[in-house]
Amino acid sequence: MSYFERHIFFCLNQRENGDNSCAQHGAQQGFDHCKARVRELALGGVGAVRVNKAGCLDRCAGGPVAVVYPEAVWYSYVDNSDIDEIVEKHLKQGEVVERLRLPDHIGR
Amino acid sequence: MSYFERHIFFCLNQRENGDNSCAQHGAQQGFDHCKARVRELALGGVGAVRVNKAGCLDRCAGGPVAVVYPEAVWYSYVDNSDIDEIVEKHLKQGEVVERLRLPDHIGR
Repeated sequence: MSYFERHIFFCLNQRENGDNSCAQHGAQQGFDHCKARVRELALGGVGAVRVNKAGCLDRCAGGPVAVVYPEAVWYSYVDNSDIDEIVEKHLKQGEVVERLRLPDHIGR
Repeated sequence: MSYFERHIFFCLNQRENGDNSCAQHGAQQGFDHCKARVRELALGGVGAVRVNKAGCLDRCAGGPVAVVYPEAVWYSYVDNSDIDEIVEKHLKQGEVVERLRLPDHIGR
């Protein structure tokens, strides 16, 4: 059994050289909103959900991105309503949000 | 199929308030060494291994810690030789390094 039932990692990478990075596209806001929603819904904790900061997840072309493990489902999100949907459907109910899935060919 | 066959996240959290955190116990060195070994062994890339920075993984009592997904196997390591073993056995060959596993009851 997984220590956290679902563990979501948000890329918060900020490139210093001016190249594009998730941090320039609302990643911190997405992370903060996810963390707040999970808290409001009391979904967090051992055996439940963990919302985590991460460095570069190396799929920058689809940024901002997040990945949910252990399912290894990758998402690209735009705004808070996307995050709400990931929280309500995937993190809470275990249903993948197909419309937000990052296509497999999207890499760095 | 998982975008990365194995995705290891190192807690690099540094607490500003003086409380204990992985960063005070060699986490950055563990991460750097892992990254370098994976590069030397050419294990990295899509469909293969990704070594990732992470914020607090919330299992501070066992720090420094790292977690390998999608298997959801958690490790506590001490030095570079521990990292070498995780790289050679788990990341390369898919064998869990039992002696370094973080016991389930170890939390924050």
